[in-house]
Amino acid sequence: MTQETSVLVLGAGAIGAFYGAILHRAGARVSAVLRTEYETVRRAGFEIESELGDLSFHPEAVYRDAGDCPETPDILLVCLKVVDGIDRAALMREAVGPNTTIVLVENGIGIEQEIAEAFPGNRLISGLAYVAVSRVAPGRVLHKAYGQLVFGNFPSGVDEVTEQLAALLEAGGVKATPTDDVVRERWRKCVWNVAFNPASVVAGGADTRTMLDAPGGERFMMSLMLEVIAVASAEGYEFPEGMAETGLEQTRMIPAHRNSMALDYLHGRPMELEAVLGNVIRAAERTHTPVPHLESVYVLAKMLLEKKPPLEG
Amino acid sequence: MTQETSVLVLGAGAIGAFYGAILHRAGARVSAVLRTEYETVRRAGFEIESELGDLSFHPEAVYRDAGDCPETPDILLVCLKVVDGIDRAALMREAVGPNTTIVLVENGIGIEQEIAEAFPGNRLISGLAYVAVSRVAPGRVLHKAYGQLVFGNFPSGVDEVTEQLAALLEAGGVKATPTDDVVRERWRKCVWNVAFNPASVVAGGADTRTMLDAPGGERFMMSLMLEVIAVASAEGYEFPEGMAETGLEQTRMIPAHRNSMALDYLHGRPMELEAVLGNVIRAAERTHTPVPHLESVYVLAKMLLEKKPPLEG
Repeated sequence: MTQETSVLVLGAGAIGAFYGAILHRAGARVSAVLRTEYETVRRAGFEIESELGDLSFHPEAVYRDAGDCPETPDILLVCLKVVDGIDRAALMREAVGPNTTIVLVENGIGIEQEIAEAFPGNRLISGLAYVAVSRVAPGRVLHKAYGQLVFGNFPSGVDEVTEQLAALLEAGGVKATPTDDVVRERWRKCVWNVAFNPASVVAGGADTRTMLDAPGGERFMMSLMLEVIAVASAEGYEFPEGMAETGLEQTRMIPAHRNSMALDYLHGRPMELEAVLGNVIRAAERTHTPVPHLESVYVLAKMLLEKKPPLEG
Repeated sequence: MTQETSVLVLGAGAIGAFYGAILHRAGARVSAVLRTEYETVRRAGFEIESELGDLSFHPEAVYRDAGDCPETPDILLVCLKVVDGIDRAALMREAVGPNTTIVLVENGIGIEQEIAEAFPGNRLISGLAYVAVSRVAPGRVLHKAYGQLVFGNFPSGVDEVTEQLAALLEAGGVKATPTDDVVRERWRKCVWNVAFNPASVVAGGADTRTMLDAPGGERFMMSLMLEVIAVASAEGYEFPEGMAETGLEQTRMIPAHRNSMALDYLHGRPMELEAVLGNVIRAAERTHTPVPHLESVYVLAKMLLEKKPPLEG
């Protein structure tokens, strides 16, 4: 992989646009597949305001569909939402050639296996973005803070291509951290997300301060995090319990904010509930780990998201 | 107590209007204290459509405030909502004479003690209404089904006055069931309410069918009911676990409906969250009974009901 590396970003929302811009900045040839913002980005490119400077760029090509690409890329950077009704493997299919490395930068637990099975002959890298970006208008992204990408080969290891991707990302200006145990890193990242994201939805799209300040809020969020840690442990990934305390302290330290799932809920967009929480609940069932607080949030969220009859009387 | 019994209904919403009408029908002299619907009821009385026939009646007198009553009644029938910010004892004060029997027909667990302490010299009867009534317009009430009142002296026993009240209610056309252990009956009734009412709020005002049909919904509602039963047991009121199963079966059998707390939530009215669930949570803490599912619903409800900043972005 060199600076002549071809990258195709699939699902160029805020995260995809940002890492696309970083790789473009590093000299890679970056194209993008996007649906709703196709016209805007084709005409005007991505406009990306960042603490790193102006990251705006025109992709080499913009497609409506992976099937429109004349050739398959070296790297397929997959930044799709993991939601019911979206067949990620089908969306990727036409963009995956024999030498294509698939890089998932997506949320949730246990989201790689389906892709590994759909593309058994391809290198699969799983990645976790620690970045605060948001889409402020069609084709316009605001990068607010952070940017680190933690990633490794799935299910484990760090090979040459992963090292090269790290070098490219660092050249582009973000911290790149290869890990030989990316599933563990996924659990680590998810402890907070699994606890806070779905609970914030059931709490009506609550921000972090509202959640922690509610009577019993801190203890409840601790219980949720400790249950995620217990499931990770049952799956073979041990973490110290102090991790939950740390998560709470860090949440207290940063300004009140609504997480992405809370915003999706309030804006009526699809949510990654199954990828983030449902898969943890299923792992708990498999490993007979009691998770009464997580189960409560999950079932209440399922009830909440059901279509309900209109209000009578 | 005779058919010359004077009754003052305090908080004449649907429940108060209904039992007021029953006592009126039995020959008692029934007056009412109401605020928002004062003008309507003073002019037109209560219009009550019921399977028992037309229960419409004009109260002997209608007051805005208990302090306006020229004399204190034999029975003060208290049908106030038990919500934060409403000082029930203060609202009752002026209507309680030395011989007034206070009858609470209100929801929740542990709601009598405060009244018993405020009026130590008065007879206190605690009652549980098994009735489907709703207010359809100012002064207009629809009685849909049932009507049984289960009641007894607080904290226990059935005395002569309680027996007389039973006879009066039966004469008025409803089933009246005196019990010498009304606190136990309150727990019995609350098993369902504590489980379903607050959860339906957190589930966005869900009806019973939506709650039971959600993935994991039945098991979750069972867990909530079993936790209430465990707290009751720790407080000295044993119930068979089969009670939760029965609650679930009965809920399945009757048509899908939204409970009163769900309707309060959807209409933006104050809710009896503390009386129904908060007091059970506090009883669980006192008795060291683990209630992780109830705790989850409670904390999520507190988060949900917090005033939240407007949606950014």
